[in-house]
Amino acid sequence: MIDSIDALRAARAALIGRVGLVPTMGALHAGHLALVNAARGDSDAVIVTIFINPTQFAANEDLSKYPRDLPHDLDLLRAAGVDLVFTPTPDVMYPADFQTWLDVTEVSQGLEGARRPGHFKGVATIVAKLFNLTQPHVAYFGQKDAQQVAVIKRMVRDLNFPLAIAVIPTQRESDGLAMSSRNVYLSPEQRAGAGVIRRALDAAAEAYARGERAPFALRQAMLNILAAEPLAEPDYVSAAAAARLHELDAPTDEPILLSLAVKFGSTRLLDNMLLPAALNTRDGLTRVLGG
Amino acid sequence: MIDSIDALRAARAALIGRVGLVPTMGALHAGHLALVNAARGDSDAVIVTIFINPTQFAANEDLSKYPRDLPHDLDLLRAAGVDLVFTPTPDVMYPADFQTWLDVTEVSQGLEGARRPGHFKGVATIVAKLFNLTQPHVAYFGQKDAQQVAVIKRMVRDLNFPLAIAVIPTQRESDGLAMSSRNVYLSPEQRAGAGVIRRALDAAAEAYARGERAPFALRQAMLNILAAEPLAEPDYVSAAAAARLHELDAPTDEPILLSLAVKFGSTRLLDNMLLPAALNTRDGLTRVLGG
Repeated sequence: MIDSIDALRAARAALIGRVGLVPTMGALHAGHLALVNAARGDSDAVIVTIFINPTQFAANEDLSKYPRDLPHDLDLLRAAGVDLVFTPTPDVMYPADFQTWLDVTEVSQGLEGARRPGHFKGVATIVAKLFNLTQPHVAYFGQKDAQQVAVIKRMVRDLNFPLAIAVIPTQRESDGLAMSSRNVYLSPEQRAGAGVIRRALDAAAEAYARGERAPFALRQAMLNILAAEPLAEPDYVSAAAAARLHELDAPTDEPILLSLAVKFGSTRLLDNMLLPAALNTRDGLTRVLGG
Repeated sequence: MIDSIDALRAARAALIGRVGLVPTMGALHAGHLALVNAARGDSDAVIVTIFINPTQFAANEDLSKYPRDLPHDLDLLRAAGVDLVFTPTPDVMYPADFQTWLDVTEVSQGLEGARRPGHFKGVATIVAKLFNLTQPHVAYFGQKDAQQVAVIKRMVRDLNFPLAIAVIPTQRESDGLAMSSRNVYLSPEQRAGAGVIRRALDAAAEAYARGERAPFALRQAMLNILAAEPLAEPDYVSAAAAARLHELDAPTDEPILLSLAVKFGSTRLLDNMLLPAALNTRDGLTRVLGG
């Protein structure tokens, strides 16, 4: 475990062979461990970073109450055979006079970007820093934050970062709820209702499998399922082009990203699925999401 | 000579030992060769890039008429013992759908940044790309573009690029005119008058050496000399803090960057000097300029 930049650079320089990076905000769960296991399988060494990045939270968001459990996180990572864990404080990553920002201007416009102004600027900036600090051969991101994947893939391509991105499918609870550090915010009643999110995606995927291509019909299929759960307040449901993430208004045979954000009380949950559904594999996601 | 990204990555991977990078826009002169020679002295291999970066030119600027002479440039670089010259076209560096920009928000505000909106965003973005493509240990920049140095130093520090920046003193013609690719635009009369720029800096440096610390007096010393040359139209004269480049309004014992932009007809020339004048060395510039 390392918390200074000098120590990280020294430890990185001592790693031999291919290096995999898994950037996280801690509060680790099986979704993160799937990223670590993928990295472990591909690489000679695995670096995990744990940093709750303040610049990707807006003033009204949950930065101060975001779940933190570093001792548990470190136990999990030790058991998973991680070589190096970087746990910087905010002043290490953002010293006084910090003033350089990355902006991915198009794929960050809609969906989460439209609802969380500045979020993806913070994400792109911290990820660029982590890439430069850890110099991985492959960096692993989860499908659940699909727009984040698209933003980072675009950033890597546009700025020629010398690394590959791998996208790992969403890990789910037994009722289909996508694993998320924010699930701990849910009351038992909300948690019981939250399985509706995956059922909404499944309903749209079934319509697609039956030949439905009209984007409005796919969105409506999700809304119909969500309407049956009184605790679910949909923020948005989307059927967007998987490559550029622009909302579709006409049928297409290109891959589609279904995504939705649903509030349960003050907790906002995300989920998504690629269509055709056969694309929701590491290979499919890595190739198609964000173009 | 290489013009594709794949070929560059392969050639870079084959270089052994420490690599120095000299990014240029071509139309090479003794100023560029001083950068190459510095890189040659420090490194096992030297990469020079020649790319007239369209995104750092505003619509009303001289992109289309910027001087180009690739065969001559390549002769000079061959003679200087450069290992690899990267000469991409704009569509290689900015493919369709390019959408990622770097913004260094504070040191890029004043001076050239105030007069050339978007210029330093274009500079920071292309330099980040070249860093990722060439992965140098040290990158070399000239003092003449002092604010560019400050922007890039800040970007490297903020984003943790794994490299060092070296700043090489301005090379000058016999009358003191700073070498610049844009000097070829000058008519013989303008060229004869352009020596006034260095004399203006010298006058302010002499006042400083006599104990003058009032920033307005240093600026006035430059203006007084420029006023004697009828072809010179000063755009600005500045006495700014060398670390953060904010214009000074009170005396300081911290290092000062004197800088000025002067038009001769439609040609705009830049020059600058650090005070105390003993700082105008590679070591002094590299340490002090941009903090």
